[in-house]
Amino acid sequence: MELHVVINGRKDLAGQLYKQLREAIESGRLAAGMQLPPTRLLAEQLGISRKTISDIYAQLTYESFLIGRVGKGTYVNARPSKTLRKQNACELASADRIDAWRALQSPLPDPTLTGTVKREFVGGATSKGQFPHDEWRRCVQYALRQMQRSIGFYSHCEGLPVLRSAISQHIAFCRGVVCQDNDVVVCNGTQQALDMISRVVLEKGSVVAVEDPGYPPARLLFASHGATVVGVPVDQEGMRVELIPDHTRLIYVTPAHQFPLGMPMSLARRTALLHRAEALGAIIIEDDYDSEFRYEGLPTDSLQSMDERGIVAFVGTFSKTLLPELRLGYAVLPPAILEAVMKAKQFMDWHTSTLPQWALARFMSDGELQKHIRRCHGIYAGRRERILSRLNGDLSPWLEAIHTTAGFHIAALFKHPIDLKLLIELSRKVEVGLYSIEGFYYQQAPKNGLLMGFGSIETLDIDPALDRLRDILLQIDER
Amino acid sequence: MELHVVINGRKDLAGQLYKQLREAIESGRLAAGMQLPPTRLLAEQLGISRKTISDIYAQLTYESFLIGRVGKGTYVNARPSKTLRKQNACELASADRIDAWRALQSPLPDPTLTGTVKREFVGGATSKGQFPHDEWRRCVQYALRQMQRSIGFYSHCEGLPVLRSAISQHIAFCRGVVCQDNDVVVCNGTQQALDMISRVVLEKGSVVAVEDPGYPPARLLFASHGATVVGVPVDQEGMRVELIPDHTRLIYVTPAHQFPLGMPMSLARRTALLHRAEALGAIIIEDDYDSEFRYEGLPTDSLQSMDERGIVAFVGTFSKTLLPELRLGYAVLPPAILEAVMKAKQFMDWHTSTLPQWALARFMSDGELQKHIRRCHGIYAGRRERILSRLNGDLSPWLEAIHTTAGFHIAALFKHPIDLKLLIELSRKVEVGLYSIEGFYYQQAPKNGLLMGFGSIETLDIDPALDRLRDILLQIDER
Repeated sequence: MELHVVINGRKDLAGQLYKQLREAIESGRLAAGMQLPPTRLLAEQLGISRKTISDIYAQLTYESFLIGRVGKGTYVNARPSKTLRKQNACELASADRIDAWRALQSPLPDPTLTGTVKREFVGGATSKGQFPHDEWRRCVQYALRQMQRSIGFYSHCEGLPVLRSAISQHIAFCRGVVCQDNDVVVCNGTQQALDMISRVVLEKGSVVAVEDPGYPPARLLFASHGATVVGVPVDQEGMRVELIPDHTRLIYVTPAHQFPLGMPMSLARRTALLHRAEALGAIIIEDDYDSEFRYEGLPTDSLQSMDERGIVAFVGTFSKTLLPELRLGYAVLPPAILEAVMKAKQFMDWHTSTLPQWALARFMSDGELQKHIRRCHGIYAGRRERILSRLNGDLSPWLEAIHTTAGFHIAALFKHPIDLKLLIELSRKVEVGLYSIEGFYYQQAPKNGLLMGFGSIETLDIDPALDRLRDILLQIDER
Repeated sequence: MELHVVINGRKDLAGQLYKQLREAIESGRLAAGMQLPPTRLLAEQLGISRKTISDIYAQLTYESFLIGRVGKGTYVNARPSKTLRKQNACELASADRIDAWRALQSPLPDPTLTGTVKREFVGGATSKGQFPHDEWRRCVQYALRQMQRSIGFYSHCEGLPVLRSAISQHIAFCRGVVCQDNDVVVCNGTQQALDMISRVVLEKGSVVAVEDPGYPPARLLFASHGATVVGVPVDQEGMRVELIPDHTRLIYVTPAHQFPLGMPMSLARRTALLHRAEALGAIIIEDDYDSEFRYEGLPTDSLQSMDERGIVAFVGTFSKTLLPELRLGYAVLPPAILEAVMKAKQFMDWHTSTLPQWALARFMSDGELQKHIRRCHGIYAGRRERILSRLNGDLSPWLEAIHTTAGFHIAALFKHPIDLKLLIELSRKVEVGLYSIEGFYYQQAPKNGLLMGFGSIETLDIDPALDRLRDILLQIDER
């Protein structure tokens, strides 16, 4: 690797080099702190004498563009750099399309932009303190050894065989999913699973039915593929299947733990959904995002295990059981779309990075995932119990919890109209992070309610947080 | 996490459980070797007495469905499992679209399917033996510590700030790219970079101009977005810019090291290309896939650095400098599309896995990447010299090397027609892996030639391999 310098002809080599280095530093292209190549190397590279290069370095050092560090080399000195951004100066043929993308709602705000507060009821965040770092580190070591043995080329587009096998066992065991290792495609979280399936199923104008309220990143993704997305209302049994429009090609549901409201889809509704989809020739995506955590009642079958027609794609993630930033998920695909989806994955990014894949496969086969889920389950059950007992207790004049059996968030609706924006604002001032369910509604009129995640809040923080919530609710009532 | 068992009502609990466990094992859903939950846990879960569960386990053990391991627990016994695959039994509304995907050519064959031979001239494979595993391991340890400190939520969609900064310094230093940290989007290799840009620039029917011969995964990806892909012939100066069709919206080029032929794009052609793109309002993708390795002549500017209109997207990868299976690459985007592409990345998979991102950032900031590139550069230069001297020597009656200054492959054209399939077949028999350039041609008539990668073959293997090639060529001539 060489310093990028362009020398034209053999005239005034020193002058050319001086000018270029100075310009590169002034423009910020060579940033403060960067080390310049040793004079010997640059001399070789450019075919200029070493003496000339030394002189130029000395000159630039004298002008304080460079700084020498004894025994270490020559570095770019700290200076304010000019802005480098180029402005587009011609009309792009794709301007409309680019503008449309720019105008698209962002699927979720950048988490690092929203400052988090001490007691966070944010949804989707995992119990970070519980993460078994030592066991994970051991599995990553194993992953590194595996990679050391690999051939130094690309890996399997559908995922490492050992991980596909671990996943198929895991979901057979705890979710009753009927599959073989070969039906599993490893991908970068649920979002990519939805994208892969969308690619092979949707065209411009295809109708997609989603739960309303529902999971915005899914809806927005389908829309970005040019689909016409229809929000189908939900009731206490889940999606109102009879309202799925004709010509629907793809149906996206969260049967185990409706997102965001939380109720499981009833057995009758599941059966009706499968029949409706079959009649339409539609593919169903079953997003089983967090149902490894189940607290009460007897487990219901996954839709996938009830499907005898091969129309359900079961999608899961390790963002909820492990860590979102690992970006590992999977899709279990019916034969009709398996091959096409594997090809789409290849087109999209070849395959998922093998380092986290190897580590996760080991983590699962060592039983660490099961252990971790069991540990978190115990903790989440306690947190959930605290929240429910408060919602059914001193918070019951204002809030009503929606019945739910799984996951790590609870939705609660307000019994009377309330200025939710004010409530959220006041809560943040006392370090309580609350989140409205309003943004999850699409074509249906939004209800007033809260999505209360308990993955991230510490158990001991729940009561103090809900005390504060109660005080603020009392305070708002008095206004 | 619990074993998935569905109990209906309170009648014959033991019978129901027995039947379900047996079915689950017979069908293979509970695979051989899986551990069953301790009786106490399953009893709690199902609200059945522990004694009942013990009896069922005992019965199934007696029937050899289960096996008890003293002090360890109860496991599923090894038995042949029935196939579980469901067949699709209804006509899908998206059948045509799915078929179209299925019919798409696979961008590259699965590397693990093509058996590799001892002396491989395969392109794109890196020098695995050179990979600095110890340094990389140290950086992965650092990555694990960073993740331990993270908030347990999603990370930045555009990549870790520290990695974006390391990349922008790296490409400013060695490729003269003019950018700020904020112009860089980290992604899963070049393939995802192309996909992100395609998403925001292309619509069904958009015209895309590619080099012909060129890089098939790029062409196929553009086509999968519904674009009309036009192959523009190349000559010794690169893409014949005057043949880029009207209404072209996206132009894909490899100026530093044309893929697959290897010649750099001339300065005149670069200037013409920028003017043509500006007149068309087209975005240019500059795929700079392996030009960190440069062997002769003075460096030419990257197209990106010559662009004053903000129409060039510079795309690079760590698949060539480090390891393909890491799946790490980046795009440096002009302001006109930066925001839209960042949003597309978010829709596609949120962000790239942070574990390899942290590790790479550290690897770069510690100077390990530079060191590694320098080390490989020396090795590749030697291999390249060997191949060129043979091509210009005893292989010159048959082959002519195309002039190239960078990368780690050389293309060579046959001077006379030859049965290339036979040559490749005979070579494989003597453990020499050769590859035709034919598959890289699209709309132009293919030439007879070889793509000779030297990333993976050991230096000492080159001469013996080329001896064999020569012998086979002589042998074919004699027929």
